Amino acid sequence: MKASSGRAIAVIGGTGPAGTGLALRWARAGETIIIGSRDAARAQQTAEAIHKRAGADAQVSGMENPAACAAGDLLVLTVPFEGQAALLRQLKPAIRAGSVVIDATVPLAASVGGRASRTIGVWQGSAAQQTAELVPKGVSVAAAFQNVSAEQLNGDEDIDCDVIVCSDDPDATQVAMELAARIAGVRAIDGGKLENARIVEQITALLVGLNIRHKGHGGIRITGLPDGAYKTGLVKP
Amino acid sequence: MKASSGRAIAVIGGTGPAGTGLALRWARAGETIIIGSRDAARAQQTAEAIHKRAGADAQVSGMENPAACAAGDLLVLTVPFEGQAALLRQLKPAIRAGSVVIDATVPLAASVGGRASRTIGVWQGSAAQQTAELVPKGVSVAAAFQNVSAEQLNGDEDIDCDVIVCSDDPDATQVAMELAARIAGVRAIDGGKLENARIVEQITALLVGLNIRHKGHGGIRITGLPDGAYKTGLVKP
Repeated sequence: MKASSGRAIAVIGGTGPAGTGLALRWARAGETIIIGSRDAARAQQTAEAIHKRAGADAQVSGMENPAACAAGDLLVLTVPFEGQAALLRQLKPAIRAGSVVIDATVPLAASVGGRASRTIGVWQGSAAQQTAELVPKGVSVAAAFQNVSAEQLNGDEDIDCDVIVCSDDPDATQVAMELAARIAGVRAIDGGKLENARIVEQITALLVGLNIRHKGHGGIRITGLPDGAYKTGLVKP
Repeated sequence: MKASSGRAIAVIGGTGPAGTGLALRWARAGETIIIGSRDAARAQQTAEAIHKRAGADAQVSGMENPAACAAGDLLVLTVPFEGQAALLRQLKPAIRAGSVVIDATVPLAASVGGRASRTIGVWQGSAAQQTAELVPKGVSVAAAFQNVSAEQLNGDEDIDCDVIVCSDDPDATQVAMELAARIAGVRAIDGGKLENARIVEQITALLVGLNIRHKGHGGIRITGLPDGAYKTGLVKP
């Protein structure tokens, strides 16, 4: 399967472990990646490091978040929850109508000085629903990738985790599922409406607790669904 | 591995699909089972049906919930959330000090006329924590078995699901994990404190939603933990 039609994926907060890991996987799959960061120099350093690991054909650049946002056809949010709302307000003018925002944010209690194995309540129900409230009209939000271990993403093995995609826009669900299926090992599952992200986000806190208790890099697999429920294997040959 | 030392497991609400399925699996593993129900005749009918399926050696009886509770060395709660609190108040005098209550209850919104793919908020944080508040002093509560498909349990195949056990009492965690590992296919995982049950309970609502959307009988597997984190294989040979 060849890379998709020249679109650019802007990974906002792409210098963090989750963002860098996702960018690495997608760069390897032939996607064009823009690393966004508060600091342009840091974004470029991360882009170079990913380029080195992903190979000579990889297309990775780095820029400040608003510029990355304006240049991206598809936005992936991988920022700590405590910075999410302010960042979205800052980026709002740069987010094009008709674009898709894929949100991987989890409202861990660590955001307010608590534990990463607990969540805090979000008025809208989930971090992803907060995002949906803050993006411009005509922009779709899909929640995904919250449960994938950053450590696994930054490694070289296939990922042993399913990605549950929640969105109120079937097109956004489709885009996020295809992006998930481009990561080797991942199976993408349609998790229904965006409101279901509140459960998927909480699973991350459970996994953090399991990681601490058992010293692992946990993920989840959903069993018992028919084969057609799992989208997988859109990986560059 | 032989059956454990003559202890009796009282499955409260054991005529429902989840209770019946668990009872069937444990009866097959050589455990002594007491089916509890509001109606003694219904409990006995279910016990006979399980006995027929589990084989001549199976030890299964049926009685009213309070009698089952008094006769059981170990209680397993598999009742709809809307009946949980009132039932526990009724059973309280019959629950012996030092016993362990394993709670599989999920506060699905269906309890109040809503959807089974959503949960309602429980003041204590989870159905299991509500149980902990309602049992007599000196009784330990472990939350477990919420995510296992009743349809899978009532079948004959190995179960393709992990059981995450949450409890504030390490002995109760141990008991619940061993009970889980007696079900073929199940891997038991220590999920930490009882408060973490709030996430495990919500996963059930997510699975119900996936089942409806994809026409399956979903379960979960936790990946990425070291082998020692999974307890498994305590099944009768």
